[in-house]
Amino acid sequence: MFNYPNGKKFNNLNKLIKEDKSINLKASRTAANRGMNLEESINLSNDFYIENNIALITKRPTPINVVKVDYSKGCKIVDAYFEKQSTTDYNGLYKTKYVDFEAKVTKSKTSFPLANIYKHQIEHLKRVLLLGGIAFFIIQFDFYDEVYVLDANYIIDFYENGDRKSIPYPVVKEKGILVKQGFIPRLAYLDAVDKLYFSA
Amino acid sequence: MFNYPNGKKFNNLNKLIKEDKSINLKASRTAANRGMNLEESINLSNDFYIENNIALITKRPTPINVVKVDYSKGCKIVDAYFEKQSTTDYNGLYKTKYVDFEAKVTKSKTSFPLANIYKHQIEHLKRVLLLGGIAFFIIQFDFYDEVYVLDANYIIDFYENGDRKSIPYPVVKEKGILVKQGFIPRLAYLDAVDKLYFSA
Repeated sequence: MFNYPNGKKFNNLNKLIKEDKSINLKASRTAANRGMNLEESINLSNDFYIENNIALITKRPTPINVVKVDYSKGCKIVDAYFEKQSTTDYNGLYKTKYVDFEAKVTKSKTSFPLANIYKHQIEHLKRVLLLGGIAFFIIQFDFYDEVYVLDANYIIDFYENGDRKSIPYPVVKEKGILVKQGFIPRLAYLDAVDKLYFSA
Repeated sequence: MFNYPNGKKFNNLNKLIKEDKSINLKASRTAANRGMNLEESINLSNDFYIENNIALITKRPTPINVVKVDYSKGCKIVDAYFEKQSTTDYNGLYKTKYVDFEAKVTKSKTSFPLANIYKHQIEHLKRVLLLGGIAFFIIQFDFYDEVYVLDANYIIDFYENGDRKSIPYPVVKEKGILVKQGFIPRLAYLDAVDKLYFSA
């Protein structure tokens, strides 16, 4: 998503300090990069589903708060900040149904933490269910290299009624559907959706 | 959406030239501002529909290509560009159905021009229809202060088979449904959607 400036020469202390910060921040973004890999896998799978007229599911762009635009440089944005997504990351159309989901990665061996799920996302998912849509999470357990589709009702229930702000791994394993990983599509997550929502 | 720098002093010719450009660009953005007003009206109406659990329809954020982030300043984006939306502006869930639409304003008295509609948006809308979703346009004729909901099939047909790259105003008036404008919701466009897609 970002292009880092490469091969830059730093010729004063101030810039060196900035470079150091940049390196540290890159290192600390490892977890985010794994999230990106799940995101990329889903995006590639969605491309496959779209091209084959199986489903029309897209990622909502990350909202960005634009503070300043330099019009003298062809509408270059020179001051802006990332904002939190107020809904979920993905939504679309599958088998005439509205589908809506969030994708998350965890490094935990024991549970899926709910700390990174926001109250308004839970409200959003409850509305999807109320209005007759399909809502779920795609959860990647890095340690096991497993990806699950888990119905949003479990997330909502654990979020609102759970003692701990996490869902134990065995619950995800039992209630979720394991997603087959392959080449094309990278993540056959709609097969798991079929099992959960479209099996007779 | 943008905050323009205000009250700046310009003390050299180069900056004055930039300021002139900025002024011209602001003037030329009048049409875009009207588009923004339609957008704001739709967003406010969507808030009303969401809060009352009538529908869950949201605007996709404008995609931005982020080139450079300054991590030393709290993830400030310092180089980025607006990108064209590859889908439509709005999608969501209404009466258990997937809905997808684009909102456009025209200053023309005689027709709705299709010049600002992109080939991939047409492909997107065709997929929505193919997969069993509801697809339409919300079209505002500035001159008449009228807003219409027009089924996407007309747009697709005129786009692909029309002699001119526009849809005559009388066609929109006849085939579309006039949207009631008011206070809450600002644009009762789902009433028009009801008439088009949900009347027995």
